[in-house]
Amino acid sequence: MELKKMIRIGVIGGSKPDAKARQVAFKVGQLIAEKSAILICGGLSGVMEEASRGAKQAGGMTIGILPGNSPQDANPHIDVAIATGLGYGRNSLVAMNSDVIIAINGQFGTLTEIAYGSIYGKKIVGLETWDIEGVIKAESAEEAVNLALKNYFPLTS
Amino acid sequence: MELKKMIRIGVIGGSKPDAKARQVAFKVGQLIAEKSAILICGGLSGVMEEASRGAKQAGGMTIGILPGNSPQDANPHIDVAIATGLGYGRNSLVAMNSDVIIAINGQFGTLTEIAYGSIYGKKIVGLETWDIEGVIKAESAEEAVNLALKNYFPLTS
Amino acid sequence: MELKKMIRIGVIGGSKPDAKARQVAFKVGQLIAEKSAILICGGLSGVMEEASRGAKQAGGMTIGILPGNSPQDANPHIDVAIATGLGYGRNSLVAMNSDVIIAINGQFGTLTEIAYGSIYGKKIVGLETWDIEGVIKAESAEEAVNLALKNYFPLTS
Amino acid sequence: MELKKMIRIGVIGGSKPDAKARQVAFKVGQLIAEKSAILICGGLSGVMEEASRGAKQAGGMTIGILPGNSPQDANPHIDVAIATGLGYGRNSLVAMNSDVIIAINGQFGTLTEIAYGSIYGKKIVGLETWDIEGVIKAESAEEAVNLALKNYFPLTS
Repeated sequence: MELKKMIRIGVIGGSKPDAKARQVAFKVGQLIAEKSAILICGGLSGVMEEASRGAKQAGGMTIGILPGNSPQDANPHIDVAIATGLGYGRNSLVAMNSDVIIAINGQFGTLTEIAYGSIYGKKIVGLETWDIEGVIKAESAEEAVNLALKNYFPLTS
Repeated sequence: MELKKMIRIGVIGGSKPDAKARQVAFKVGQLIAEKSAILICGGLSGVMEEASRGAKQAGGMTIGILPGNSPQDANPHIDVAIATGLGYGRNSLVAMNSDVIIAINGQFGTLTEIAYGSIYGKKIVGLETWDIEGVIKAESAEEAVNLALKNYFPLTS
Repeated sequence: MELKKMIRIGVIGGSKPDAKARQVAFKVGQLIAEKSAILICGGLSGVMEEASRGAKQAGGMTIGILPGNSPQDANPHIDVAIATGLGYGRNSLVAMNSDVIIAINGQFGTLTEIAYGSIYGKKIVGLETWDIEGVIKAESAEEAVNLALKNYFPLTS
Repeated sequence: MELKKMIRIGVIGGSKPDAKARQVAFKVGQLIAEKSAILICGGLSGVMEEASRGAKQAGGMTIGILPGNSPQDANPHIDVAIATGLGYGRNSLVAMNSDVIIAINGQFGTLTEIAYGSIYGKKIVGLETWDIEGVIKAESAEEAVNLALKNYFPLTS
């Protein structure tokens, strides 16, 4: 499929997740790739890295939008690294460039991304993350990716 | 007092608050000025404008950090308008430039500012706003401004 | 070749170039693709669009870093569109994400990109563009792409 | 005069100017204050600091728009420090928030500000700086400030 026609699923979450959240992030990444969607993330460690690793292992494509000045800062599983030099300000860009978002775990950085996602009209699916109005709760990686795809394609749900 | 030594209190909140929130915002602005603090806000309407109006009526100083490209976009009660051209990305700058933050009401934009405030290590006092970990709840404008000043000067509390 | 190992050549220039500059931009895009490099640009019209069109016609890959809030703003020849919401502030990101830059024609937006490229330590090859210290002049699309690749690989020149 | 009605003159230039440029920057700052204008600058060292020092010595007001995350990064002569966290991306904001700009000396950072100033429709007066189309050349601090005020008030010229 043409890159520009593929759905982009943003995966957001903490840079220091526990073991369970890491596994979930990896699985979410795998499923995104299996569904022929592109993974968008912040390009660094933790949930971002595990999801990217999962996506690449399943043959998918990954985009990382980085806080620093250098594309070389990306984790090794990012195909297209975009440096922004914006620091935490880049969180707005992660939300802006996703068609739908899956939030896994996470701290205040993840909360900015959930809030920006809502501002930009994106649906957000949550896995053990902030309990914020509008976030659709999922119990597993499978459910999260299915809900993300359903909410991106409301007509098929 | 020298401008650069004055405490900066950020006031964040919705652009379309109800009548009660408008009154509270106005009162918060007045009290900030009476305490010789500078009011920092997003420079536009609603909570931002009412707080600025209150601060100016009490002889205070106001700084507005705007989303658009022109300082002329500021509400009429802003002394120093700073245009950013960052859209909602400017929310990060409102938090970054405040010593302590008072959140009144608000929607997802306010939530990004609460989250950025937490990332940047600022204390946040909340008045009928998002119930987020770390936000110190206040019941009135007076209590909010007092809590803001106490949390900025922890040794005097 | 793996995407992340491919050289990224930024192509910058005006959104309203004359016929000659359009042809040169198209040819530069073609040659970038033929050399297995990725084209980075601002994602909109004029030089950006002609270079993207050339790259796609030659089977290459294109990244567009956009000023607005929506990836849908990209010209139809962009594979990976990144929205920034930064307005002209995105010009810094175009420079930051290029390994080497080719400037074609252009006005003040192009000048910001030449200057940012220099700040970020990127070599800049110029085709009928601003005559700025450090810009390496080329006379044709072929020479520009060759100079870009030589200056990116200084040891092979 | 009300702060919001005062003209804002941006002073841009290198962070490591030679002795002569430092003297000129100091004098430009003094004259800006004497003309009851506000000095806007990047808030750091070199031309920015000398101009701020001159403005404060003459009783003026100074605004510094900083690249880092903390208002404390400003030089000691800044009254209102605005942190942006944008790195060199803050150069766009210096231009955006000036009514008219005086460029003194400078390297590529100054060039981005000259170019952004032109994009945002600001007149630029230059003192031994980049020779760019549209920059109005001045030979002394006095002439530069006079030209800045004349070009801001075109009807009085």
